[in-house]
Amino acid sequence: MEVIRNFEELVSHLSQRTERRRVAVVCPNDHSSQEAVARALDEGIADILIVGADEEAKAFFAKYGERIESVDASDVDEAARADVLMKGLLNTDNLLRAVLNKETGILPKGRVLTHIACAQMPQYDRLLFCTDVAVIPRPTKEQREEQLRYVLELCRTMGVEKPRVALINCSEKVNEKHFPHTVEYRELVAKAEAGEFGPCIVDGPMDLKTSLSEAALKKKHLESPIEGKADALIFPGIQSGNVFYSVATALPRSSIRWP
Amino acid sequence: MEVIRNFEELVSHLSQRTERRRVAVVCPNDHSSQEAVARALDEGIADILIVGADEEAKAFFAKYGERIESVDASDVDEAARADVLMKGLLNTDNLLRAVLNKETGILPKGRVLTHIACAQMPQYDRLLFCTDVAVIPRPTKEQREEQLRYVLELCRTMGVEKPRVALINCSEKVNEKHFPHTVEYRELVAKAEAGEFGPCIVDGPMDLKTSLSEAALKKKHLESPIEGKADALIFPGIQSGNVFYSVATALPRSSIRWP
Repeated sequence: MEVIRNFEELVSHLSQRTERRRVAVVCPNDHSSQEAVARALDEGIADILIVGADEEAKAFFAKYGERIESVDASDVDEAARADVLMKGLLNTDNLLRAVLNKETGILPKGRVLTHIACAQMPQYDRLLFCTDVAVIPRPTKEQREEQLRYVLELCRTMGVEKPRVALINCSEKVNEKHFPHTVEYRELVAKAEAGEFGPCIVDGPMDLKTSLSEAALKKKHLESPIEGKADALIFPGIQSGNVFYSVATALPRSSIRWP
Repeated sequence: MEVIRNFEELVSHLSQRTERRRVAVVCPNDHSSQEAVARALDEGIADILIVGADEEAKAFFAKYGERIESVDASDVDEAARADVLMKGLLNTDNLLRAVLNKETGILPKGRVLTHIACAQMPQYDRLLFCTDVAVIPRPTKEQREEQLRYVLELCRTMGVEKPRVALINCSEKVNEKHFPHTVEYRELVAKAEAGEFGPCIVDGPMDLKTSLSEAALKKKHLESPIEGKADALIFPGIQSGNVFYSVATALPRSSIRWP
C-alpha cells in the first residue's frame, strides 16, 4: 500500500476500503464527538456504535436511522466487540477503569496499556506518531519496548514499511547517572539493529530537533540513520510527551519550521 | 519602569540606559557569537570583554579598536568581574566546570545554579521565561524554590511588578503517587499566597495550555489567577523543559495560536 502522509490521505484511504471498522463511541454527549461521528458516517469511513448517549445526543443522531447502533452505557460486552474505542464526554479515569477491569475489561492479561498520539505538522512531510503523552508516567524498560512494538505496528498500518523511531532525550549523550533511560535506549537500538522488531530504524538518545530536522543534526555535527525524518517519537516520560502534544496541537497548519 | 513585552522593547530599553553592563563572551569563535557581540556594540547596549578569542575572532573584532577588551582564556579573574557571562563556541561542560570550581568559580557558596530561557512567541502578548530547560535534571523542592525566586527577580527586572508563574504538570490534578512534585507545587503556591516571595501570582499544577491560554482554561472549566497569561513557566524537569524550548525555537514569529 502507499504511505499515508497526512490526515487527508488517511480519510481518502479509509473511504476507499470495502471493509469498515466498527467504532464504539462512549458518551458522545458533546459537540466534538458528535461532529466526528457525523463526519465518519457521512464520509462512510467507519461503522458507529454509540454507548451511553444522552437524550440530546440520541436526537442529534436520529437522522442516521438504522445506520447507527446504540446501546446503554451498561452494555460493556457489546462495546467490547467493537474494533475501536473512542472517548466522548466522560472522565478518562472512568473509561480506563472499565477498560482495565480485571473481570470485564478489554485489555488482554499481561499486556501494556499505553497511548499514541498522531500529529500532522506544517512543513513536516509525514505523520508523526508520539508515545506516550497521556497514560504511563515513567515507562519502565519493558513498557518502553512495548511502546516501540505498538508504534511500529501502527506506522506499518499506515504503509511505512521501515519506520524511523527516535528515542527522545534532552541531549544525544548517554548519561547513566542523570538519565538512566538513555542506557536503556541504547539496548533498544541494539535489539532493533539485531532485527528483533522487524524492518525499522531506531535511534537515540536524540533530542526533538535532531529527530525532526536534518539541518539540526548537521548543525550539531551528528549523524543518525533517522536523518531528521522520524515517523515516531518515544518520549522519556509523560511530562515531556505532554508538553510536545500541547504545543503541537496549538499550532495552526502553516506555522512550524524545523529547525 | 514600563513592562518589556518583546525583544525589540528590550533592545530599546537597553540602548536608552546611561549605564551599560559588561558582558564577558567566552570563546566568541563562531558566527553567532560574533554577530551578537557586533550588534551589542553597534547598538551600544553593552560593554564587551572577549575571553579566549582565536586569531580569526580577534581579526573580526579589530574594527572596534579600544571599544572591545580582550583577555586570555586563562584570565578567569577578569572574566569573573563582568556582569554577564555569555557562552561562545565551547563545550558547556567546560564553561560550567570553570563556573562551579570551588576555589576560583563564580557561583557563591550554597547557591543553586539553574537556567532560565526567554521566549517571544507569536500571538502571545508578553515575554515568557522558562526554567529549567538545560541544567538541573530533576529539581528538588529546594532547587525549585530557588528557580522561583530567580525567575521572579528576572520578571521584575523586566518591569513585571506582579509576575504570574505557572508550575507545569501534565494535568491540573495533585497526584502524590505518580507526580510527587505536584504536592510540592501546592506548598510553593501556599508560600507565595502567604507573601513569602513578594508580589506575585503562583499557581499549579497546571498544564502548558491552561498556563498560556484563557480559552484553554475555560474549556477545562477551570479557574486560575494566572488567567492564561503566565510570565514564567517552571517545568517539572529538564526533559519537559527541553521539549518546550526545542519547539518554541523552531517556531517562526507568525505561527503559534493558543490554544
